[in-house]
Amino acid sequence: MPPININPDRLLGDLQKLRSFGARQSGVVRPAFSEADIAAREWLAGRMREAGLEPVFDPAGNLFGVPQTDRPCILSGSHSDSQPEGGWLDGAYGVIAALEVARASAETGGPPVAVVSFQDEEGRFGALTGSRIWTGALPLDEADGITDLEGRSFAEARAAMAGLCVAGFIQPGRFSGFIEAHIEQGPVLDDAAESIGVVNAIVGIRSLQMRFTGHQNHAGTTPMAVRRDAFQGLAAFTGAINRDFADVVTPATVWTIGHVALQPNASSIVPGQADFTVQWRDGSADRLDHMEAIIRETAMRLCDDRGLQLDISNPVAVPPTEMDATLRARLERAAETTAPGAWRIMPSGALHDAANVARLMPAAMLFVPSIGGVSHNFSEDTHKHDLVRGAEVLARAIAE
Amino acid sequence: MPPININPDRLLGDLQKLRSFGARQSGVVRPAFSEADIAAREWLAGRMREAGLEPVFDPAGNLFGVPQTDRPCILSGSHSDSQPEGGWLDGAYGVIAALEVARASAETGGPPVAVVSFQDEEGRFGALTGSRIWTGALPLDEADGITDLEGRSFAEARAAMAGLCVAGFIQPGRFSGFIEAHIEQGPVLDDAAESIGVVNAIVGIRSLQMRFTGHQNHAGTTPMAVRRDAFQGLAAFTGAINRDFADVVTPATVWTIGHVALQPNASSIVPGQADFTVQWRDGSADRLDHMEAIIRETAMRLCDDRGLQLDISNPVAVPPTEMDATLRARLERAAETTAPGAWRIMPSGALHDAANVARLMPAAMLFVPSIGGVSHNFSEDTHKHDLVRGAEVLARAIAE
Repeated sequence: MPPININPDRLLGDLQKLRSFGARQSGVVRPAFSEADIAAREWLAGRMREAGLEPVFDPAGNLFGVPQTDRPCILSGSHSDSQPEGGWLDGAYGVIAALEVARASAETGGPPVAVVSFQDEEGRFGALTGSRIWTGALPLDEADGITDLEGRSFAEARAAMAGLCVAGFIQPGRFSGFIEAHIEQGPVLDDAAESIGVVNAIVGIRSLQMRFTGHQNHAGTTPMAVRRDAFQGLAAFTGAINRDFADVVTPATVWTIGHVALQPNASSIVPGQADFTVQWRDGSADRLDHMEAIIRETAMRLCDDRGLQLDISNPVAVPPTEMDATLRARLERAAETTAPGAWRIMPSGALHDAANVARLMPAAMLFVPSIGGVSHNFSEDTHKHDLVRGAEVLARAIAE
Repeated sequence: MPPININPDRLLGDLQKLRSFGARQSGVVRPAFSEADIAAREWLAGRMREAGLEPVFDPAGNLFGVPQTDRPCILSGSHSDSQPEGGWLDGAYGVIAALEVARASAETGGPPVAVVSFQDEEGRFGALTGSRIWTGALPLDEADGITDLEGRSFAEARAAMAGLCVAGFIQPGRFSGFIEAHIEQGPVLDDAAESIGVVNAIVGIRSLQMRFTGHQNHAGTTPMAVRRDAFQGLAAFTGAINRDFADVVTPATVWTIGHVALQPNASSIVPGQADFTVQWRDGSADRLDHMEAIIRETAMRLCDDRGLQLDISNPVAVPPTEMDATLRARLERAAETTAPGAWRIMPSGALHDAANVARLMPAAMLFVPSIGGVSHNFSEDTHKHDLVRGAEVLARAIAE
């Protein structure tokens, strides 16, 4: 195969153009099915057509750019919807990098490359909605019943772009594999001054909703010895799992207590109830199991000791997704050629559409750095030379 | 002095009658200046008059029943407003016990006894409003500007009973001392199967509003080692002060983290901010100081170690109030006569009007048990024989 020579100015120009849809201050407000999102998709469809790809909107609002070829080709892309108030690169980078590689490959007689922008990755209707529908994990009629925070249903939302969409879905069999480029959204590459991360696995996520119920009491007249204080239980639980995890986790393992609600939440009343979530992520299903056992056993023992009632609900378990070994090896060779010594193999701590697509075909991912590790924030950014290098690695891996 | 023989049926009958104002389910809804509160006060004024006392409503809505005498007499009472949804004895017990003792004393040729029901003890306009105004701690015109949670001012609220009130305040010099009977609102007497608590001090209260500010981050992509998690800081702080307090506190000391608010409080986001209150109570000002030093030093050290910013605001400091030694000794002798071996000396962990009145005259308090330690709750209750014993102790102490 000849090399695919990408055009950096065209890559950065299209990224800037996509940024302009829903632009606010230094960031982007382009949630799925918003006017800005639909306008951005129509512009993307036009750029695909100019690149020799046939733009196809499926019923979920996913936009595919399909090359005219009979044999299976690589699919690349990400998503072009943004967080409610997001940065300019989260999703957009992977879509434009794929578009530029497809375009450059067509110009230089390289392999045909298909491009995709999945719909609602950021979760107006639950995370990764478009790729879940396309890969069969979420039936369209079930998705139609999901409502956003304002009570609008997915069915109503997608009706706004019904005029653009075809009736059926693109057959996955048209693609030989999927490669998604994305910003890291964490500090690892930026801290190490590296340009590329080749993802070995998208971490699995577990979470549990927990409730400790004690006894609500007067904060002046209830001696410490007889209190059943739900918040003190939560504080002790937090310390206990931190200690017990120490022998189990790796530096890439994370766990978070991000949501806490006390009842009655008044400074003069001993808290009678604490609701909170524990979420943990790791690339190994065994390690996720081990952590879950620690969480459940610690909560049971501690609630027993303190006279608290324990309720556990809403278990969430997204399994880890190994990236395809062959595609990953191609990305590693391409990274070493493009950025010798300035890349690493790493897990993805965030979920991505590639985790869904991996159910249907070989899938892989590459990261470019996030300056300061900042994402889901107007100040999200990546150095231009890293944006270009990421597209070059994608092009080399596809050309190989 | 002859003994004052109280009438148990009349005591319990008047308690039941007072309960009927604002009665709901098994509890009472009678916040200060509500229709039920004003109706209860008018009924109380009538009962005072029947007992030979002159009822006087002062401008703050406090109701005094004053005997016809030129020499200073003992004042006894509490409050007849309730928590927004309260029990039937919190406040009401001390008012009716005082009324019964004044009435029985007049019948048996005992000493004259004045009766009071302070207004808004429960804090529709800040705690102990009526006794703060009467004792000069809160000027009336300043009180008038205070608003309740619905935005109504104290001035508007008291206008509802302006037709009942006289222009001036009862002179404190008319009273030689103050004794307040009240339910314990805690479990100590009930757990020990004792009938009477003689209060040695009303505890002091300190509280601080604290804010730990860290860095809000993605819960998947931010390694544990670089997180500045405000909630993890709070959990560690909670454990650290528990450990450091162990060498400082007594079994009567209490401390509470009752209000917690995380930002953004989402299960998938590392908390960037934790706002919380720490409140602690003890009868010794020195111990309160020592605890405050531990709280401040622990927070500073911990925030330093974890890269969190510390902000401390809204310091509250209510000093402890020693009860008058002479009145207290009279209550102790009366308790031993009435309930031999079934009483104790104890601090009050809750604030009471007596803390304000103690600034003007000798003041003392006695407690009767709260079944199960429950208060500020519809299920608040006390055994009948303990209600009677409390009034008997009050009568004996006053007759002595």
